[in-house]
Amino acid sequence: MRHALLSLAAMFLLCVTAHAQGAFVPPSPDGWQRTSSTQRQSEFPKVNADGEYWFRFSAPATARDVKLEFAFQEFPAQQDADGRWNVIAKAPKVGYQIVRWIVDGARLPDPGLEFTFSNGWVSTIEIPSPEDGYYLMRDVPHGDVREHWFYSQIEGNWRRAYVYTPAGYDSQPDRRYPVLYLQHGAGENETEWTHTGFAAIIADNLIAEGKIEPLIIVMNNDFVYRPGDNRGRLALADKWNENYEEMFLTEALPDIEKHYRVIPDAAHRAMAGLSLGGMLTGTVGVRHSDLFGWLGIFSGGVVSEPALLNKDTVKLVFETCGSQEYPERIQQNVAELKELGFNAATYVSPDTAHEWQTWRRSLYQFLPLIFK
Amino acid sequence: MRHALLSLAAMFLLCVTAHAQGAFVPPSPDGWQRTSSTQRQSEFPKVNADGEYWFRFSAPATARDVKLEFAFQEFPAQQDADGRWNVIAKAPKVGYQIVRWIVDGARLPDPGLEFTFSNGWVSTIEIPSPEDGYYLMRDVPHGDVREHWFYSQIEGNWRRAYVYTPAGYDSQPDRRYPVLYLQHGAGENETEWTHTGFAAIIADNLIAEGKIEPLIIVMNNDFVYRPGDNRGRLALADKWNENYEEMFLTEALPDIEKHYRVIPDAAHRAMAGLSLGGMLTGTVGVRHSDLFGWLGIFSGGVVSEPALLNKDTVKLVFETCGSQEYPERIQQNVAELKELGFNAATYVSPDTAHEWQTWRRSLYQFLPLIFK
Repeated sequence: MRHALLSLAAMFLLCVTAHAQGAFVPPSPDGWQRTSSTQRQSEFPKVNADGEYWFRFSAPATARDVKLEFAFQEFPAQQDADGRWNVIAKAPKVGYQIVRWIVDGARLPDPGLEFTFSNGWVSTIEIPSPEDGYYLMRDVPHGDVREHWFYSQIEGNWRRAYVYTPAGYDSQPDRRYPVLYLQHGAGENETEWTHTGFAAIIADNLIAEGKIEPLIIVMNNDFVYRPGDNRGRLALADKWNENYEEMFLTEALPDIEKHYRVIPDAAHRAMAGLSLGGMLTGTVGVRHSDLFGWLGIFSGGVVSEPALLNKDTVKLVFETCGSQEYPERIQQNVAELKELGFNAATYVSPDTAHEWQTWRRSLYQFLPLIFK
Repeated sequence: MRHALLSLAAMFLLCVTAHAQGAFVPPSPDGWQRTSSTQRQSEFPKVNADGEYWFRFSAPATARDVKLEFAFQEFPAQQDADGRWNVIAKAPKVGYQIVRWIVDGARLPDPGLEFTFSNGWVSTIEIPSPEDGYYLMRDVPHGDVREHWFYSQIEGNWRRAYVYTPAGYDSQPDRRYPVLYLQHGAGENETEWTHTGFAAIIADNLIAEGKIEPLIIVMNNDFVYRPGDNRGRLALADKWNENYEEMFLTEALPDIEKHYRVIPDAAHRAMAGLSLGGMLTGTVGVRHSDLFGWLGIFSGGVVSEPALLNKDTVKLVFETCGSQEYPERIQQNVAELKELGFNAATYVSPDTAHEWQTWRRSLYQFLPLIFK
């Protein structure tokens, strides 16, 4: 009896103690301000001059174990006197990072942050990186990024592409431009190269500095579904390569060349992408390298079939990854490509993994090398 | 002692019974498919031919009371054998609707849906409305929607506007177009008129049907913050009107007239908006009606100072709202405007409140009336 009582008491205490509040004592509010990623209607997260980030979350009242996932690291949260869960932590990494609350095993977004599509909709924060000022908005002429729709007979559906046109495009209606076809990764969509990758800002800044000539950048969605194809997550493995190849070459590319003033030859046409988009460049772009003189593979593996590269048209193969990915692999592949007589180069992003900071840097390195 | 034991036992049971699972028996999967708003990597929510929606959510393991908020109605959720919470319900309303899970008092988004910014980032679902086919993508020429940046001296900051340019804009570099300045609501931003309001599709369809002439639509952000202004939620009450008036007239409008081929006179310049954007039209637009010949106030109140309307330039004042808002108020105001000799009209959206279906319909009604 006593034992039963004790065990019941113990289990009950287990139920209620987790709700004890007030463990977190808020710091003085002085010196804390909203982060650049804190959405308009929210007060949190905040950041201070020491680079500490203060996250706050109103979890379900029944929550017992609450942690914060911040740039792939987990931080235990503490409840304040009002029952809200708090974490104060330095950013484990720079650049674009995903933030999630882990509440008794469930991963929940932080409603105070901006959201983006990355393997589903996630709350994200931008951690400043002083050495990466090339993607900051500057007082230079800015191009437009256009939402452009075209009909795909293959899908029986309208498809959306984003098209960067450089400053001056409208005021010089007879001028034609080189074009880069830039692909996103498996978890993303056609919005992310400009929204998260800052591709338009990077191009604006490089053009303003005179480091590159004005160009057009076309961002298509990697996924092409024929009627009846599995549109879910596993569609990745489901003919995406062949579907994309046909849509890209017979529908997207002709539509762009009809509606935008591109220079329609291999010397003025590049293809690049990150992760899955890099793999597409290494397959579709390599197979059709008679059309694409400049190829960029960012964290997307290597050129596995160099024999398919067209010696007459290919002017550069550029392979990149984060230092925490597989630098040796791309360096080895580029050495092989050079032995075969191709112009090839690598870039390894310092202290980064399979993440956006790698790809922003890769684009910044790639653009000055193409269309020379 | 016995009493203590019983009460402990009762409280302990309270803790654990809520975790009883299996109350929800899933229907046969036949006939259920992902909704048009189910994001690429998700299987749920689903919809069947009877118009029933099946939502599923993996809540924190400690969750006890789980409800679904679907188009402003709450539905109790049941756990299945795997502990996931399920709701099957018919849609309470058509059009764009917000979906939230309410878990022990906390409102959480549905990770399976697309997200949009509406008073913070929310998960949303699009419920088909057969009588509203005017906003569906059709096989007609589509204009581009351009992300356009300009520098604001008032903010000391870059501002983003979205600019719809009709099909043919690029191929007719000497043609100039009338322009509608279209404002969003207090909870939104400059992306929502095209993303959620389908403004570009509505214009494309009306142009293709010959019901309107091609036009340019400019969508600015309503909020203008001087350095030091409160950028949080309460900024609404914080000089937004005066700040917007100066930014819009001295920075946004001249920038658009410099970069896009608009016809720069009141007869070819309109201003409209929803909710806060309608109020801005009723204040800034009315005060400067020498510049704007056509004014549209959608669920944004009425013209409270008709004396400020310019009799020489104002060609139409159009006031709309949902039937569940304040039809009498706009009808009364329009009667007064007519007595004063102005051309004015109302539109009342059937069976809708302060919601996007009202504003999509309002834009569809407004566009054929302007630039005549």
